[in-house]
Amino acid sequence: MSEIEGRNAVIEALRAHMPLKRIYIAEGTKPDRTLDEIVRRAEESGVRLDRVPKRQLDAQSEHGAHQGVMADAKPYPFALLDAVLERAEGKSRSLIIALDHITDPGNLGAIVRTAEVVGADGVLVAKRRSAAVTPAAYKSSAGALAHVLLAQEPNLVRSLERCKEAGYWICGASEYAKQTAWEAPLEGRVVLVMGSEGEGLARLTQETCDFLIRLPQAGKIGSLNVAQAATALSYEWLRRGSLES
Amino acid sequence: MSEIEGRNAVIEALRAHMPLKRIYIAEGTKPDRTLDEIVRRAEESGVRLDRVPKRQLDAQSEHGAHQGVMADAKPYPFALLDAVLERAEGKSRSLIIALDHITDPGNLGAIVRTAEVVGADGVLVAKRRSAAVTPAAYKSSAGALAHVLLAQEPNLVRSLERCKEAGYWICGASEYAKQTAWEAPLEGRVVLVMGSEGEGLARLTQETCDFLIRLPQAGKIGSLNVAQAATALSYEWLRRGSLES
Repeated sequence: MSEIEGRNAVIEALRAHMPLKRIYIAEGTKPDRTLDEIVRRAEESGVRLDRVPKRQLDAQSEHGAHQGVMADAKPYPFALLDAVLERAEGKSRSLIIALDHITDPGNLGAIVRTAEVVGADGVLVAKRRSAAVTPAAYKSSAGALAHVLLAQEPNLVRSLERCKEAGYWICGASEYAKQTAWEAPLEGRVVLVMGSEGEGLARLTQETCDFLIRLPQAGKIGSLNVAQAATALSYEWLRRGSLES
Repeated sequence: MSEIEGRNAVIEALRAHMPLKRIYIAEGTKPDRTLDEIVRRAEESGVRLDRVPKRQLDAQSEHGAHQGVMADAKPYPFALLDAVLERAEGKSRSLIIALDHITDPGNLGAIVRTAEVVGADGVLVAKRRSAAVTPAAYKSSAGALAHVLLAQEPNLVRSLERCKEAGYWICGASEYAKQTAWEAPLEGRVVLVMGSEGEGLARLTQETCDFLIRLPQAGKIGSLNVAQAATALSYEWLRRGSLES
């Protein structure tokens, strides 16, 4: 059960239509505009709201920052890789985006949003050391988390091998790649693997890739963040498809 | 002078290397990890730190949420449109990104980051009803705000007309456009105009555009956010340039 702590996190979850089981408000919490909005939105979305003694929240709280308000989220309904592959069966073009330990929930949500918009068949995330499906992820996904097949993989390398067997090219995004996204065969059935914000692709993941690509950079200092890079690369995949048809 | 209020905002500003003039800490504020980090980072970056009576912060505070910590930012050094056009003079390819009332500072920062990475010559923002250059903007720009020429335009339509005179095509991003980004002449000297998060392009802005483009969508529910769309479109402009050379 995910515990969501604090007024801002709970209101963000409600605004982003994150499915919640229950909201707890500590008895004696002073009403204010935020609290009023929480109560109103909970009623509108039919989420049960309990007034409980403050000490109960103190006991449940992990971070000690509940400010009198907490919520339990419904467990996120992760898909199985089987379902993703089934959905893609028989398609000559299919995109799966795999995330190798992306840790920022906002990036996770933004990538899921991109996946939905370009018509990807699924998103795979490594189970450990990865961003959770938090209110911030819901917010940046703008509803897409409810529509995209998101699978949580205990062993991402093995999952990529399964995708290979299902006829996918495994394409890793790496700033050290020799090929640009424009030169590489970023088309057809592709798993696009994005590395973590700080570290990039793990060594084993990189070795599993059939080829690596990078986005050309014309600037002097920077690189894109991982969600922006995933968007640019996913659109390049979509563009290639449009040339075929 | 921009007042930055609260521990999280001040620490975000310091972490993102936003240029600060001065940090104020209320006398008697309880030390904790965040406060320690603020003091340490202020010293490292040579920002003056004053201990002041709490009532002084109460008086300065706009939102009443200073939590004992506030900061004054140095005014952001906006560029002039002249400087942007000068930098682009004589180039056969130049990108300027114009933002028609983008209100989210995180989006502003992300678009500035993209502008830097693709080598845009500048970013124009409408002066009114637009996101300010806040700590959140610094954070999402990942340093690019210190490098890109960002101009604040009192009258965006007039500024676009000036760009036309300087040999730019004015290209508006709109989900109602007939042409996709892949079909349109998104190449050479282009001002890419992005509309606001909620409303899209203002009518007058749209009428100033030479042509409108949209990003194709293969999904069912969503569209990209404005920063993601700007990234995908900017990369399409960059890709076209790579074909010429």
